Amino acid sequence: MANSNPAYKNLPGGYLFPELAKRTRAFSEKHPGVKIMRLGIGNTTEPLPSSIIKGLGVGVKKLASVETYTGYGDEQGNTELRKKIAEVKYKKAVEKIEADEIFVSDGAKSDTANIQELFSKESIIAIQDPAYPVYVDSNVMAGRTGKIRENGQYEGIVYMPCTEKNGFFPEIPQEKVDIIYICSPNNPTGAVATKEQLKKFVDYAIKNKIVIIFDSAYERFIYDSSLPRSIYEIPGAKRCAIEINSFSKEAGFTGVRLGWTVVPKTLMTEDGANLNSLWNRRQCTKFNGASNIAQEGGIAALDKKGLKETQKVIDLYMKNASVIKKGLESIGIKCYGGVNAPYIWMKCPNQMSSWDFFSKLLEEANVVCTPGSGFGPSGEGFVRLSAFGHPKDIKKAIESIKKNLKI
Amino acid sequence: MANSNPAYKNLPGGYLFPELAKRTRAFSEKHPGVKIMRLGIGNTTEPLPSSIIKGLGVGVKKLASVETYTGYGDEQGNTELRKKIAEVKYKKAVEKIEADEIFVSDGAKSDTANIQELFSKESIIAIQDPAYPVYVDSNVMAGRTGKIRENGQYEGIVYMPCTEKNGFFPEIPQEKVDIIYICSPNNPTGAVATKEQLKKFVDYAIKNKIVIIFDSAYERFIYDSSLPRSIYEIPGAKRCAIEINSFSKEAGFTGVRLGWTVVPKTLMTEDGANLNSLWNRRQCTKFNGASNIAQEGGIAALDKKGLKETQKVIDLYMKNASVIKKGLESIGIKCYGGVNAPYIWMKCPNQMSSWDFFSKLLEEANVVCTPGSGFGPSGEGFVRLSAFGHPKDIKKAIESIKKNLKI
Repeated sequence: MANSNPAYKNLPGGYLFPELAKRTRAFSEKHPGVKIMRLGIGNTTEPLPSSIIKGLGVGVKKLASVETYTGYGDEQGNTELRKKIAEVKYKKAVEKIEADEIFVSDGAKSDTANIQELFSKESIIAIQDPAYPVYVDSNVMAGRTGKIRENGQYEGIVYMPCTEKNGFFPEIPQEKVDIIYICSPNNPTGAVATKEQLKKFVDYAIKNKIVIIFDSAYERFIYDSSLPRSIYEIPGAKRCAIEINSFSKEAGFTGVRLGWTVVPKTLMTEDGANLNSLWNRRQCTKFNGASNIAQEGGIAALDKKGLKETQKVIDLYMKNASVIKKGLESIGIKCYGGVNAPYIWMKCPNQMSSWDFFSKLLEEANVVCTPGSGFGPSGEGFVRLSAFGHPKDIKKAIESIKKNLKI
Repeated sequence: MANSNPAYKNLPGGYLFPELAKRTRAFSEKHPGVKIMRLGIGNTTEPLPSSIIKGLGVGVKKLASVETYTGYGDEQGNTELRKKIAEVKYKKAVEKIEADEIFVSDGAKSDTANIQELFSKESIIAIQDPAYPVYVDSNVMAGRTGKIRENGQYEGIVYMPCTEKNGFFPEIPQEKVDIIYICSPNNPTGAVATKEQLKKFVDYAIKNKIVIIFDSAYERFIYDSSLPRSIYEIPGAKRCAIEINSFSKEAGFTGVRLGWTVVPKTLMTEDGANLNSLWNRRQCTKFNGASNIAQEGGIAALDKKGLKETQKVIDLYMKNASVIKKGLESIGIKCYGGVNAPYIWMKCPNQMSSWDFFSKLLEEANVVCTPGSGFGPSGEGFVRLSAFGHPKDIKKAIESIKKNLKI
C-alpha cells in the first residue's frame, strides 16, 4: 500500500508565487476592465540581445546536421561552458575555481532545492528570514523540519532575522547549526553583504565545520566594486561554501533555463565525504544535463560581446529600480534595496500587514507586489517590488501608486 | 557540523555509463590507432528533422523580440504542449488523460529519479531485474534500501527477475510491496509487455493500493499495434499508475531535454494524498519548467509533419536493430528484443559474464556494448546493444563482430 511522504503534509497550502497569481487572477475576474501592473514576480521582460540569440541559433543549427548533432552531453555540462564560467565569473576568487568544480544545471531553483539531498536528514539548517522560499520548502519536503508554528516559522529550522535594525544582514546564529543559506544580493530584501559580513560567516563556518550554501543569482546587479560578487572572494570559502548562480536574471534566461553550482573539491563534510564527488554522483544519477541549445546560449552570454550586451539590459532594470525607489520615497514610503540589487524592499505604511497592503495596492493602484511575509515571518510588514519590467510599465505603475494609493 | 547523507554511502563506486565510458577510454588510450564502434549507450545520433528544427528556431526567435519574449513559464509546462501530448499520445487511453494531468519536464531521467520523493521512506519498491539503474539508485539515495549484497541486490528492494524463462516479463511479486516500477518497451531487455501482462499488474495494484511507475520512454518503437503504448490502455490504470515519457528517443531530444509525466487526478495513496497535487507541489517548489525553446520543439514534434518525420528516424533506428539482431544470429548468438524496441538483449556466448564479454567484444571486435549486469543481477550473462547509431556504423560494427569475435 503506497503511502505519501508525510513531510509534504507539513507544507502550507500554496507556494508563494502561485498563490499570488491566484489572488491577482481573482481580482482581474472581478474587475475585467482594469489593467493590472505587475511588480510582483522577478521575471525578466526584455528580449535577449543579438549575440545570445545568435548563440542559441547556433545551438539549434548544430542539431540539424549529422556532422554537428549532439545527443546526451556530460551531466556536469559542456566543457567549454564550464571553463568559461570559471574564467569569467571567478576572476576575483582568492583561490582559483576550476572548471571541474562547476556543475551546469537547468537553473538555480533546481540546484537550490536539490543541494540539501547531500546532507544527513538530521542536519540543522539556518536561513535568513525573510528568504527565497525554496530554501525552507525543500528542507520541509526532505523531512528536516517539524510542523509550521503559528508565527510562520518551522520547528527545527534556525531563523536568522534580517531586519531594519541589523541592516538586513543577520548575526551569526546562537544555536548549533550545520548548514547556512545566505543570499546576496538578497532576494527579497535587496541587501548586499559586505566582505566583512561574509568573512564573519566564513570564519565561523570553517571553525564549526558548517557548510554555507551561497546563492549569488543576482551578483551581476552589484555596481559597487567593493562589494563581493562571489563568496569565493573571501579567504577560506573554498573549504566551507557551495555557490549557486544562474543565467536567468543576468542574461534573461528565466525561460531558457540555465544555471550552475560551484562545489569546491576541497569541501568536505565532518564525516569525511567529498561534496564535489557527492554532487557529481547526484547529478549523474538524477539529472541528464542542461539543454545543449541553452548551453550554447550561455557560452555566447559570457563572450565579450554577450557581457557587454547583457550589461545594457541590467542597466535598464537598475534604472527601473531607481524609478521605483525614488517614486515611493517621494510619497514618504520607506524603501530598502534597489541599489546593487533588482529588488526594492518596501515598508508597508501605517503598520499594515504584507497581505493587507498587497490587497490595498492591487485595489487602489492596480499594482501587484509580493507580500514580504511570503518570504518568512520577518518579512511581515514589508512587500517586495521587482525592477524586472519594461521601463514604461514601471513608470506607469509608479505614477499610479503616487496618484491612487491612499496613505 | 555538516554530515553527509549516509544513504549515498550505500551506492557502489560508479554509475553504469560513466564506468563504461572510463573503461572504453582506457582501452582507447592503450590502443591509440584503433577505431572504437559504440553500441553501448542509447544515445541518438541522427539530426533533427526540419519541422522540429523550425519549431526550435521559432522558440529562439520569440526570445529576440519584446512582443514575443517569455520568461518563466508554468512549472507544469506550456499549456499548448500539455494539450497536444494529451491528444496525440493518449488517444487509446481507456479513460481520457487531461492536459492538467500532464507535467512537462526536462526529461524522463529527472522525473524517474524524483518521483520517489512523493512516497514515504518506508515504501517498499519492486523493480524489474534487470532495469534502468535510476529506479534503484534514486531509491538508494533516498535511504529506502539497506546495503548492497554480494549478489548485487540491495537489502530492502524486491527484485522481479526478468529472465529467458518468463520471456523477460516478471511475475507478480510474492512479497508485500508498495511501489512497482515497470518499463515497456523494456530498457535493457527490449521486451514489450502485452495488454494481458499489464492488466495483471494493474488489477493487482488496484487491489493492494500499490502505485505503478510506468516508464514508456520507448513506446514509439512499438510497431505491433496490438501491444499497448501506454499503461492507460489498461482499464483502471488511472487509479494506480503514473506514466513517464520523453521526447529523447522518439524525437532525438537526448541533448535538447524534454519529457513529461502523467499523474492522474484520480490517483490516491492509501493515506489519502492526491498524487497529482503532490507532484504539482514538488515541481512548483523544486523545478522551474522545461526550456521554452525545447517546448516549442516539442510542439513541432507532435504536429502531423513532425510525427511523420520522426517516424522516418525511428524506422532508421529499427532497421539498425534488425541488422544487429540478424547479424548476431547469423553467427549463432542468441538475441532478444530488437523488435518493437531499440535494444537488443544479447546472451553472452559460452556462459561468459557480462563484463568479461564486454572486454572481449571491445578487444576483439572493437565494439562497445553495455554489460547486462550493470542493470541488475539478473542481467548477468547478457549485454545490451543499442540500435541508436548511423546505419553505416552499425553495419561496420556488426561486420567486425562477425569477422573478429572468437566464439
